[in-house]
Amino acid sequence: MALQTNQASASPTAGGFSLSRYLPALDWMRHYKHDYLIGDLLAGLIVAIMLVPQGMAYALLAGLPPEIGLYASITPLLIYGLLGSSRVLSVGPVAITSLLVMAGITPLAQPGTPEYIQLALTLAVLVGIIRVAMGVVRLGFLVNFLSQPVLSGYTSAAALIIGFSQIKGLLGISIPRTASFFELLGYIGQNVLQTNPVTLAIGLGSIAVLLYFQKRLGSQLRRWSVSEALIMPITRGAPLLVVIVSTLLVAGLGLNERAGVAIVGAVPAGLPSLTLPLFDWDTWRVLMTTAVIISVVGYMESISVAKSLASRRRQKVDPNQELVALGAANIAAAFTGGYPVNGGFSRSVVNFNAGANTGLASMITALLVGLTVIFLTPTFYFLPQAVLAAIIMVAVASLVDVAMLRHVWKYNKADAASLLLTFATVLIVGVEIGILFGVAIAVVLFLWRTSRPHVAIVGRLGDSETYRNVLRHPVQTCTHIVAVRVDESLYFANTRYLEDTLLGIVAEQPQVRHLLLIGSAINFIDASALATLESLVIELRDAGVSFYLSDIKGPVMDRLKAIGFVETIGADHIFLSTHEAMTTLECV
Amino acid sequence: MALQTNQASASPTAGGFSLSRYLPALDWMRHYKHDYLIGDLLAGLIVAIMLVPQGMAYALLAGLPPEIGLYASITPLLIYGLLGSSRVLSVGPVAITSLLVMAGITPLAQPGTPEYIQLALTLAVLVGIIRVAMGVVRLGFLVNFLSQPVLSGYTSAAALIIGFSQIKGLLGISIPRTASFFELLGYIGQNVLQTNPVTLAIGLGSIAVLLYFQKRLGSQLRRWSVSEALIMPITRGAPLLVVIVSTLLVAGLGLNERAGVAIVGAVPAGLPSLTLPLFDWDTWRVLMTTAVIISVVGYMESISVAKSLASRRRQKVDPNQELVALGAANIAAAFTGGYPVNGGFSRSVVNFNAGANTGLASMITALLVGLTVIFLTPTFYFLPQAVLAAIIMVAVASLVDVAMLRHVWKYNKADAASLLLTFATVLIVGVEIGILFGVAIAVVLFLWRTSRPHVAIVGRLGDSETYRNVLRHPVQTCTHIVAVRVDESLYFANTRYLEDTLLGIVAEQPQVRHLLLIGSAINFIDASALATLESLVIELRDAGVSFYLSDIKGPVMDRLKAIGFVETIGADHIFLSTHEAMTTLECV
Repeated sequence: MALQTNQASASPTAGGFSLSRYLPALDWMRHYKHDYLIGDLLAGLIVAIMLVPQGMAYALLAGLPPEIGLYASITPLLIYGLLGSSRVLSVGPVAITSLLVMAGITPLAQPGTPEYIQLALTLAVLVGIIRVAMGVVRLGFLVNFLSQPVLSGYTSAAALIIGFSQIKGLLGISIPRTASFFELLGYIGQNVLQTNPVTLAIGLGSIAVLLYFQKRLGSQLRRWSVSEALIMPITRGAPLLVVIVSTLLVAGLGLNERAGVAIVGAVPAGLPSLTLPLFDWDTWRVLMTTAVIISVVGYMESISVAKSLASRRRQKVDPNQELVALGAANIAAAFTGGYPVNGGFSRSVVNFNAGANTGLASMITALLVGLTVIFLTPTFYFLPQAVLAAIIMVAVASLVDVAMLRHVWKYNKADAASLLLTFATVLIVGVEIGILFGVAIAVVLFLWRTSRPHVAIVGRLGDSETYRNVLRHPVQTCTHIVAVRVDESLYFANTRYLEDTLLGIVAEQPQVRHLLLIGSAINFIDASALATLESLVIELRDAGVSFYLSDIKGPVMDRLKAIGFVETIGADHIFLSTHEAMTTLECV
Repeated sequence: MALQTNQASASPTAGGFSLSRYLPALDWMRHYKHDYLIGDLLAGLIVAIMLVPQGMAYALLAGLPPEIGLYASITPLLIYGLLGSSRVLSVGPVAITSLLVMAGITPLAQPGTPEYIQLALTLAVLVGIIRVAMGVVRLGFLVNFLSQPVLSGYTSAAALIIGFSQIKGLLGISIPRTASFFELLGYIGQNVLQTNPVTLAIGLGSIAVLLYFQKRLGSQLRRWSVSEALIMPITRGAPLLVVIVSTLLVAGLGLNERAGVAIVGAVPAGLPSLTLPLFDWDTWRVLMTTAVIISVVGYMESISVAKSLASRRRQKVDPNQELVALGAANIAAAFTGGYPVNGGFSRSVVNFNAGANTGLASMITALLVGLTVIFLTPTFYFLPQAVLAAIIMVAVASLVDVAMLRHVWKYNKADAASLLLTFATVLIVGVEIGILFGVAIAVVLFLWRTSRPHVAIVGRLGDSETYRNVLRHPVQTCTHIVAVRVDESLYFANTRYLEDTLLGIVAEQPQVRHLLLIGSAINFIDASALATLESLVIELRDAGVSFYLSDIKGPVMDRLKAIGFVETIGADHIFLSTHEAMTTLECV
């Protein structure tokens, strides 16, 4: 049995105190096997190849210089490797977090300025503190309030905004930064005639290569009997390939000067120096909303991919430990020149498929990015920005999830509506308000659902002791008794609806003398509903109808007893099962 | 059978279109009986005796001149008499609405100024429009989101604020208006030394008389064998008595000039002229929050008392018609010099007990208040303000509901917490934010309750087909099957909790080969929970445990079929009842 509860730790010594609960790396370090190494090495290398161009690209998306993206890909990975309970989650700059950083800081400072970078560091430390705090007080469950359809609608809309925001890089035009989709479209429309044709050609060429490597090359190589061990590095090497080829092209032909192709320019060499985020209450207050949204949204993305990958190998991740690990990674980013980081969806999948066995893979990636920063930054000078735009566009395209919409639409129109409403809100009012609105939609939808519960009149199924809906099953009923099953807890939002419905049923059947309320689906009765029940009993009595209860759950019955409701209706009016009630009331 | 559903009208011709559905007065006018008249006349008179001083007092509480309270007690009562589906609700100025008017308008204009009065009219028309609109589109159910504990905590706190706000009148001191309780206490403390002793004596004397009439006089008169028909007018006449006696005292001894007793002063004579509220979008926007709160909170108070009184006489009130009637009453107030009105709790009870049979009682009250305005206003000149303060304080004292707190505390600590939190919030941050906060608390409490559902492992009760909690009943179980009943709908907020709990149960019992999830309390499964179930089935399969469902409700099963989940787990893994499942799986 490989399964364990989340309450228990992911370590094998869950019983007493265990250091490896707080430092999951100890677990794999102690039991490290030789044959883990090749997978960890290969995965570390492939992820590093992806991460170097992505890190720079996402930093630009966030309004930061490219090296910040590289700095955010070193220490956070080392820290996560030590603290993370997932062995394959690949931490670093990710698309939606970068968009949120841009949306949150742009109103406060000019992108690319020292103030802007300082605010990004501060945002990282805030995200770190919020996450660690949530993890320590075990608030991991709070993210559950982000429903799957809301998250899907949000991700799709954010991906669309990110994709369109890269069009400026692709066309070589300059437009103001904005996280509003329609403003973005407006700016693009106004400036599309300034398109730089050479830049566009490089960008489209890069997209073509990236898509070809991603969609086609794998199966072609397989047809040519290339070994699987080689296919993975080759297909995932596309970003590196376009980076190298385009850089050589621009440098060789001098396209930056002769054709006005925008290039990355000078990227400082060497490891980042120690940086200090702002410890200033006013700044913290202003950044707090953005920090909370990044903390929660990014965590949802990370924990989803971590859980799904872990379950494929019968491993478990601990949601609260993940909060601590991701929080610590962000604090590390804040002190080493980075900006907010998260577990990335696609990179983690690549890490997993490339054979990462332990956190060592993550540490190897960090080492390789570190070496890149020390030795290779001068080679990025001629890298066209259009190539980074192309890398982002191809990466986020897969986040627009139409299949999910179709699936949810088929299952449940209300869930689909919450997906579409969140999607539309994010496009119309932006990524920050959009997610808050989405959470509100999901809550309102739930309240609406529970405020008009399904009510079934039930009858006996054959000679069994089972009682089911008269409208759905061939059942026997009696004229003097109506047995009603209310399929919801009774609480303030549905208590009047219940009262009206029950009185309506009795009014429609004047021969009824007994009303049996079946509590099998009533999980609690709040104080408002109790008051309604009390008045309902009196109203029914006045109408000559006796009131009975059956199948009341233990915790509900405890309360009804304590408050004296059992005496109000009489203990002999309460039955353990519907069948017992129907027998006593002479219906069977 | 006197009962009818709310969906049907309260009129006897509910079938097709019926004018009396929209004009309930037609109903009692057509069937008016001679012996209704004496009750209607007496009730109309007694309520008028209460309403004249209360109307003036509540207008002062709202920061308005006293005559506004009288104007608001004429046309609104006539209109409500025609449109109201309750025959005994007494409409007019009420305490909490007056407090809300003061809290909403004071930041915009100086109390007592023409602008202030104009804003009060505008607020009335807004409240009217909002209510009529809610009634027409049948949004009466929306008020259900105000739970009983929240409303109780809110009312108690508002009553406390109102009571303490009258201390200034009682002491004859002047303090700034505020709807913040602690600010109020501060102001009182700063000014208590300026107390006017004669004013205080009049005020305390009035309170003593009012309390004596309310609490003691009735039983004394009964002991002296006074007829019941006389006791009611006598005990309810206390406000009129203190008004007359104190006015004569102040006028006769010239206490206003000799002892500085604050008096009401000149109240204009004659019916109000036609007034026009502001039709100005900016003003409407500013007043909208207050208008919505008055609409909803006042409606809750009105509908509660109307419903409870109607049920005592086997009558029904129509929640949506009540919204329309109360809305129209407010629009009438706005055009005839009044301010927002509502059904008052204590006056309605008096109206009912005094024998009001139809809306005619309300119309008689309106007529009497109208005559008072035409002929009697000069007599109010010497009325001490301290008497009006005393009348308000005695009236609101009964709204502080400690018994409800005790009852709710005994029943359910969480509900009690929402009562106390709302109470505290209203006192700390004020009456407007307080109610919004209360609604939020109730919703969060509900989400919290449903996010950690009760989960029971069940077994067979004796030889029956009933399966109950192993921890509560002496039941039989099998080692190779675990049957789990989850007492909640499965939705985004509890889906991870469910997954963890089920995996935990299986992990604790390694001999289990079959997991049966009993759906008798699962009222819906949203898209997030469906995704979790899908992955749960796979995780269980990997652990060598088969997954089964039983007692799935019809509507839930329809969706599971449509989306293909039934095929995922196999149709033979789904049973109609727990007993059928246990039989098939060889547990019985």
